[in-house]
Amino acid sequence: MTHRAKIRVRYAETDQMGVVYHANYVIWMEVGRVEFARAAGLPYKELESAGFFMAVIEANCRYLAPALYDDEIEIETRVDKATPRGIEFGYTFWRGDKKLGEGSTRHLFLSKELRPARLPAEYHSVFGIT
Amino acid sequence: MTHRAKIRVRYAETDQMGVVYHANYVIWMEVGRVEFARAAGLPYKELESAGFFMAVIEANCRYLAPALYDDEIEIETRVDKATPRGIEFGYTFWRGDKKLGEGSTRHLFLSKELRPARLPAEYHSVFGIT
Amino acid sequence: MTHRAKIRVRYAETDQMGVVYHANYVIWMEVGRVEFARAAGLPYKELESAGFFMAVIEANCRYLAPALYDDEIEIETRVDKATPRGIEFGYTFWRGDKKLGEGSTRHLFLSKELRPARLPAEYHSVFGIT
Amino acid sequence: MTHRAKIRVRYAETDQMGVVYHANYVIWMEVGRVEFARAAGLPYKELESAGFFMAVIEANCRYLAPALYDDEIEIETRVDKATPRGIEFGYTFWRGDKKLGEGSTRHLFLSKELRPARLPAEYHSVFGIT
Repeated sequence: MTHRAKIRVRYAETDQMGVVYHANYVIWMEVGRVEFARAAGLPYKELESAGFFMAVIEANCRYLAPALYDDEIEIETRVDKATPRGIEFGYTFWRGDKKLGEGSTRHLFLSKELRPARLPAEYHSVFGIT
Repeated sequence: MTHRAKIRVRYAETDQMGVVYHANYVIWMEVGRVEFARAAGLPYKELESAGFFMAVIEANCRYLAPALYDDEIEIETRVDKATPRGIEFGYTFWRGDKKLGEGSTRHLFLSKELRPARLPAEYHSVFGIT
Repeated sequence: MTHRAKIRVRYAETDQMGVVYHANYVIWMEVGRVEFARAAGLPYKELESAGFFMAVIEANCRYLAPALYDDEIEIETRVDKATPRGIEFGYTFWRGDKKLGEGSTRHLFLSKELRPARLPAEYHSVFGIT
Repeated sequence: MTHRAKIRVRYAETDQMGVVYHANYVIWMEVGRVEFARAAGLPYKELESAGFFMAVIEANCRYLAPALYDDEIEIETRVDKATPRGIEFGYTFWRGDKKLGEGSTRHLFLSKELRPARLPAEYHSVFGIT
């Protein structure tokens, strides 16, 4: 289960080193997992409408080569681990066949009141929870 | 009634032209009016706790000279017009005595349900509503 | 000469009012004019490679209805005025046939040294300069 | 060698969960290390003027409790490891005596041409390189 999402680098995302500012990759990971979930049948906003958040409890990124203005970047997203309590995603960033970086995020499912919650069974297949 | 707030330009706010990306001035205006209100006795979060939003319905900015990385910028904020229904702020951006830009924002007071609302009388003096 | 570009609202672009934070529309205007220029045959990065910047000297935005998380937004971009010295763009933001806002930006063409410059004749047709 | 820098949470940094969007902590780490270096006698822009960049090759963050709008956040920064080739920073985020999160970044010193470089001896003491 992997999904590839595409984004185009915005000028707003560059910095005065002439490359993409590193924090933007963390935003791109959001794009990656949201498109992963949509492709698996669950737009993330539906999860929120159903009363659940997927809160980020950890984010990690390694930068291998700089992304540049106007690059088309592919964000490859996979589920590394998933339970009804939480989930881990892995990401690889590509410009063509050049690997620009790798990352991961860990999440807890939370209720509307921002307390730990169990993901209902109907959503398990989206993330490969068995 | 004017207030001066200070911010330090972050690397994240620069772009590959080597200057501050223009949309950041719009965020700086937020800093300006929030610090204006705090100095006048009303932290904006108290207004939200009381059930009101100050929604932005217009933002304008003119750029006169570029702000640079690590600059200390002063955001001068004033109320240009205020009624119980809405408010207009004016802003001037300074690096020392060099004027970098000017802007304005217009706002409507909204209820929690995001419908037009009247600002309660107890808050009028904050914005000079008479 | 108008162009429509599409973006998907990111969670990162929302704020605690539950809508898109207003400064992001200014970034979306960048997406709009860059895609306008690409569609007209000139990727903006080629203009920079040729030694020119299109510096923003003014940005304006009116907000009519809030954009929401995960919305597909269409950014309609047109050239309102263009000379070899500078250019004005107009923008309309749409979610389906609902108009969410309108904006404009004014730009000066600058040399690499960030001094006013004349846009070379070969690029005039991109922006409808006659 | 630790330094504490203060920032105030901006509305722009919140998201529709009603908390700070997680990628902003990565920007706050930048504020932390820049203020660390300034306190140790080296404004980062001087390092760039001297022809060096401190490129981010890794960033990690763990989120323990949400930062909220208008919070005053203290970013505690320390050097975890430093050589003339690169450096590792550790960060702790505090709201009062409540720990909100922890992070780390790894950096390589680069030349203007973005190639690996050795930090000149005159800057070693800033980062505790012995």
